[in-house]
Order: sequence, then C-alpha cells, then structure tokens
Amino acid sequence: MEQHSRTDAYTDRYAARAAGMVPSEIRALFAMAARPEVVSLAGGMPNVSALPLDAVGRMVGELVAGKGADVLQYGSAQGDERLREHICDVMSLEGVQASADDVVVTVGAQQALDLITKIFVDPGDVVLAEAPSYVGALGTFASYQADVVHVPLDEAGLIPGALRETLSRLRREGRPVKFLYTVPTFQNPAGVTLTTARRAQILEICAEYDVLVVEDNPYGLLGFDGEPMRALRADDADRVIYLGSFSKTIASGLRVGWVLAPHAVRAKLVLAAESAILCPSNFSQLAVREYLATQPWREQIKDFRELYRTRRDTMLESLEQLMPDGCTWTRPAGGFFVWVTLPEGLDAKAMAPRAIAERVAYVPGTGFYADGTGHSHMRLSYCFPEPHRIREGVRRLAAVVEDEIRLRDTFGGAVTDGGTGVQAPGPDVV
Amino acid sequence: MEQHSRTDAYTDRYAARAAGMVPSEIRALFAMAARPEVVSLAGGMPNVSALPLDAVGRMVGELVAGKGADVLQYGSAQGDERLREHICDVMSLEGVQASADDVVVTVGAQQALDLITKIFVDPGDVVLAEAPSYVGALGTFASYQADVVHVPLDEAGLIPGALRETLSRLRREGRPVKFLYTVPTFQNPAGVTLTTARRAQILEICAEYDVLVVEDNPYGLLGFDGEPMRALRADDADRVIYLGSFSKTIASGLRVGWVLAPHAVRAKLVLAAESAILCPSNFSQLAVREYLATQPWREQIKDFRELYRTRRDTMLESLEQLMPDGCTWTRPAGGFFVWVTLPEGLDAKAMAPRAIAERVAYVPGTGFYADGTGHSHMRLSYCFPEPHRIREGVRRLAAVVEDEIRLRDTFGGAVTDGGTGVQAPGPDVV
Repeated sequence: MEQHSRTDAYTDRYAARAAGMVPSEIRALFAMAARPEVVSLAGGMPNVSALPLDAVGRMVGELVAGKGADVLQYGSAQGDERLREHICDVMSLEGVQASADDVVVTVGAQQALDLITKIFVDPGDVVLAEAPSYVGALGTFASYQADVVHVPLDEAGLIPGALRETLSRLRREGRPVKFLYTVPTFQNPAGVTLTTARRAQILEICAEYDVLVVEDNPYGLLGFDGEPMRALRADDADRVIYLGSFSKTIASGLRVGWVLAPHAVRAKLVLAAESAILCPSNFSQLAVREYLATQPWREQIKDFRELYRTRRDTMLESLEQLMPDGCTWTRPAGGFFVWVTLPEGLDAKAMAPRAIAERVAYVPGTGFYADGTGHSHMRLSYCFPEPHRIREGVRRLAAVVEDEIRLRDTFGGAVTDGGTGVQAPGPDVV
Repeated sequence: MEQHSRTDAYTDRYAARAAGMVPSEIRALFAMAARPEVVSLAGGMPNVSALPLDAVGRMVGELVAGKGADVLQYGSAQGDERLREHICDVMSLEGVQASADDVVVTVGAQQALDLITKIFVDPGDVVLAEAPSYVGALGTFASYQADVVHVPLDEAGLIPGALRETLSRLRREGRPVKFLYTVPTFQNPAGVTLTTARRAQILEICAEYDVLVVEDNPYGLLGFDGEPMRALRADDADRVIYLGSFSKTIASGLRVGWVLAPHAVRAKLVLAAESAILCPSNFSQLAVREYLATQPWREQIKDFRELYRTRRDTMLESLEQLMPDGCTWTRPAGGFFVWVTLPEGLDAKAMAPRAIAERVAYVPGTGFYADGTGHSHMRLSYCFPEPHRIREGVRRLAAVVEDEIRLRDTFGGAVTDGGTGVQAPGPDVV
C-alpha cells in the first residue's frame, strides 16, 4: 500500500509534458524479438561489425595514451572545433557549404532534435512531419507537447501539393507552424527519397509560408546508385536546419551527431546543449575526429553501401517471391528500410504478436504516426540481419500475412484500435 | 539587412523557455582566462592527467578490438546493465543500497538534472536550491522556467531552520515545491558539507512537507579525511533521487553519470532519456565498465584525493598568508572549491575584469544565485592548477583585492547591478 501511494504521489508531481512520455505498446514484444531464434526486421541497427575493429581499436588506444589529457577532459558545449571542420567536409559531399562555427556537435542527431524542439516549441505549437515519420522525432515532439500535423508522402517523397494545402489550412486556422521536420533522403520509415524537382518545390513553398525546415539526414551517404543527393540545406542556408549523424557511417555506439543551423539559432542551441549535458564527450568526439583524419572513411562508407545494397536486394527479391498478392512495398535506393502496405483489412499492429510467435519481428506502422493511423503498414529493415536471415524472415512473415488474409476472408476485417501511435522511440526501433 | 531581419524572425519563433537561455556575462572573460599566462582558479576541471593513460589506452584499445560489435552499437536507453551493477557497488561506499534496475546512466550528472527537471517542472514551479548553488543546475532549472527559491547554507551546509521557514512560507503562499536540489557533500561552489546531524533534520523536514530531494553528489568520494559521508539517499530511498558521476573519479571527458530514482520515477526518466538522446554511448559506458572491472579504481581515487588534498592545503595556506584582512573563506574537507567572501563594499563581478588583467581568474559569486545576489563572493577552485600556480594565482588575486579595498576606501563602495545571475553554465565553470 505504501508503495502504491508513493507511486501515485509521484504521478501528481510530474510536469504536464511528462504525460506525453508513454512507453511503446510494442516494447514487450521487442524484448521477445531480441531472442536469437527470432529474425528481427525491426531494428535500425547499423552493421558496425563491418568496421576494421582491430585498426579502430589500435587508433583509439593510441589516442587515449597520447592525448588523454584532452580526450578524457571536459570540452566546449559546441563541440570540438577540428571535428566540426571535418563535419563540414562530410557535408560538402552533399553540396552543403558551411562554417564550422555554425555546427553544434550533439549526442547523436536525436539530441539535435531534442534541442531544436526545446528552443522552438511551446506546448500546442504545430510541427509538420511526413506521414509516416521517424518514431524518435515523434517521441521528442510529444515530450515537448508539440501538435504534430502530418503531410503525406509517396514514392517521390513529401508531396508538395499536400504541403501547400496543409500550410494554407493551418494559416486559415491561425495556427503558426514552428517547423517542417523531414527526412528527405532514404526516409525512415518509408525508404523513399524526395526527388530533385520536389526539393526545389518544397523549399519554395516553405519560403512562401515562411516556415523553417529541419532536414534530418542520417542516411544521405548510404545511397546505392551514383552520387549523394544534394541536401535541402545546400540551397537555403537561412531556412534549413540540417541534422547529421555518424551513427550509420561510422558507429552508432559513439553517439556523435550534429546540427548545422543559421548563426543566431546555433547560439541558442549551444546554450540549450549546455543546460542539457554541459558538453558532448571528448572521448567520442576525438575518436571520430581521429577516425576521419587517419582512416579510409570514404572507402569504408563504400563498403557499407555495398553491404546494405546486397541486403536491400535480398529483401526486395524475397518480398517479390514470397509475399502474397495484395501486399505492396517501397523500393529504397539507399538507407535501411522498406515500407510495406498490407492488403485491405489487415492490421500490422494486431498481427505483430502472431509474427513474433512465428519468429519474425517488424515495426508496425502505427509507431510512425502521431494521429493513431498507420495500421495497414509495417517497416522492415534489412540493415542488420545477414542475407540468409532476411530471406528466412520474409518467408516467415509471408506465411503470417497469408494466415491473416485467410482469417480476414473467413471472419472479416481486423478491428483496429484508435489509440495514438506516439511513443518513446526505443533504441531498438531507430 | 536581410541577415538582420532573419535574426529577428528566429527570435519571434523561439519557445517561451528559450528566453531563460542567456549566455553568461562572464563568458568573454573566460575566453581570456584560457590564455596560458592566466592562472585560472575558475574551472572545475578534474586532473585527468593523473590517470595511468598508457594502461587506460591499452584497455580501451583492446575493448574496441575485442568487443567492437557491442561497444560501437546502440544500447538501451537505461544504460548498460553490468555498468549499472558496478554503479551500485560504487554507491554502496556511501551507504546506498540500490538495485541496478533503478539506475539510469546519463550523459554526465548534468543530463540527469535535465531529465529530472524535464519530467517534474512546469513553468513557474518552485525548485529549492542552496544559496549559493551549482551554476549548471541553475541553468537547467532556468531552461525549464522553474522558479528557483534559495535556502541559505553555512559552514555546516544547508540550514535546517531556514529550510523549514522557506517551506512554511511557500505553503502559506500556496506554492507547491517540486523538489529540493542539494549538493550536500563538498558543495559546489561553497565547499561546505552537510553535517550528519543536519542530514537527519533535512530529511525529516522534507518528509514533513512531503518534498522530494535531488541529491547531487559528484565529489562524495573525494573527501580528505576518513570514510565517505553517508548519502542522504542511504536513509530515504523513496524521497531522494540521487545523482552520481564518474567525471571526477574517472574522467569527465567520458560523460558518464547516473541517476538513482524510485522505480516509478526511473521509468519516466528512461522515457525522457529516449526522447532526448535515444541511448547513452556504449563506447563511453563500456570503457567505464571495463575500467571498474579491470583497473585499480579504488587506489586511483585515493591518488586523486591526495593530489586534491595537497592543492587544497596550498590554497588555504596561500589565502591565509596573502589575502588582506576582511576576506573570509570556507575550508573544504573534500572536493574542488573554496568560497571566498570579500570585505564589505567589494564586488567580485565588477572586479573580475581587473583580475583577468592581472592574470588570475575566478568565478564571481553571482553565477551561483538565481536572484541576482552573490556579488560579495567568489569561487576559487584548486583542482586543476599545479600547487605553485595556485600560490601564484592567490598572490595575484590578493593584490587585486588590496587594490579594490584601497579604491573603496578612497571612492566608496562598489555599485553592483541588480541583474539576475542565471546563466548557461559553460563547461569552463563546472
């Protein structure tokens, strides 16, 4: 009883924003999905084992032994200056011209999202996001009580006409928009990429409505064909806040990301970062800096691309061969994810426990919408499992979907609940 | 002009809380204080060079080479489980009995402060803090628009009678208190330690008024005499949220801290951590875990203690010998800081530029108060400079103070401004 009343007592004390922090309904499932017999097509974990671990270990060991007084000490809140210069070099691959002074190093791009939301969003403020959108961003927006308004995308990315309609409607309703959050390239979760033509249109519309753009680009260098796409930021330095990350191009366990912002915004972000974490880890930052300075990182990214391309191919071939009629899916040209739409009447969220029972895991689409929709979708990731496991996972999944179709045909469509999909992200579903 | 109007446009877009994020007025001074000819008694940087850097480098190198697939991968938002078990061992040195399941690993204790404030504090909510209090905590509280109410301390730490009076007054005013924030042991900035007798009284008063306690204890193991103090958390597991850090006992550049909270609160903290950073760095966490598992960390802490004790002694002796009459200061039994009170009519903030000109830096007391007071105080740190530099720094400082006394006697007391002291902390003044 004492324990119970204590729990209630805490509940009464929480800030209003804490109400938006609720655990994912699928968390318990993911605990089961971590078992080795389950093929997980759920997680967005990069394949860090492909790194030359001996060489990286040697590099890090020498770094600590030789420069320990810096590596192990506090740094500046904005992040290491030489690392920020390297970051500008990395961004130049996507056409971005930037000064190191406008970059803030963050604990993964997730912290950049948190800081941006913290400095811009009052409770009830509107943030625009693609439908579907990155689950971790939706979690952050919810934690600051943002009102997320979705804008649909298709195979060519965010739909300009839909963006304009949404902005026009919100203007009529007198609801100002704090920013548009978008993952234009190899989108998480949909796997689609905003076309060059649409990039110009999106920027034009945002200029017309004077809306800031938060461009989240963790996968930009992991394209399977040709040169990297030109970033939105490359064509509008004043309007676009750019988020980058080394989680997918070097290693997620380092937690090194960054934000490039207009100078005045950058100053606010540094202050927000100070009050949030004092400063990012020099240990991680200088490891990344040393890696970029001494290791063949461009070649390593090519290796990652080939590895993920092979897995993407395996997944698309398996889907083609094995999935029952009525399922459709996107064909990513890079990144980690395929977005599957189930036949009419099937519910990916309701189906998830049955899939786990059949030893295959995915993320139900509901996690990627703030408005309770997404039941007919699922996100499949091909980044982490070996190709033969991807094929086996799709085989199991196809069998589950076939069963669902049979059930639907026998008993009618699935009943979907109407709960919102906003959930804390969980590192297992990045 | 375009640039200017842009800047204004951003300003209009910020959240209300961003108004509380303002740069420190002394930041420009600190840039100058970083010059080698200046003796800095300002920073709270631990002496990480005292670590066996070769051995730590070797350990880290082998860790990455041997366990890279874990070290470089995403982890759980709560933090590595085996590290959390080690953390419980560390806390047991201060009498704390805890389960690893109630610990959340954070990006330094600063992030723990941020997450706690985020889940508990609505704009305008009252947070109690010592007068003076840790500048970084005040920055975090300001960033969530908390209303900080100070409670005075003396040589024996937070004054129980003053706490009771404050709580009673706030109750009469109908203003509920979200929590009491305290650094009971080797306090930052005052260098004082809450006595055992007062610990019981403080807990009793907080129980009577049903107030949560946030116990921030980064210096607890760095005492110069006898056994570590018993933590407040050791005597009230339900009411006290405990913050710890490896920044001072291992290395600040790793950014590994933690929070131990009642179970229900811990669950909220994990969700808040997920939306803030997804997960803490495995690279840093597993380095700490390996260090605690394989290196003689207890002996290393003893070495740190001896090193800081010598510096504390040097500083106290120098102050005794060199400072003019009318100055008083605390005598810390551990930690990093001495708190100096200047003679009547002197203003430590106004004096700071003149001190820098004389090649010595300190933190003016105003940074440690949310209410614009603290002008007659300054924080001196002895943790980082070599003893001969400490002596030289105090010599220079004493000369500056003597000049100020002469000026006061000739022209009357200093004019102090009434601005609030709330500032973003800055890693240079931790």
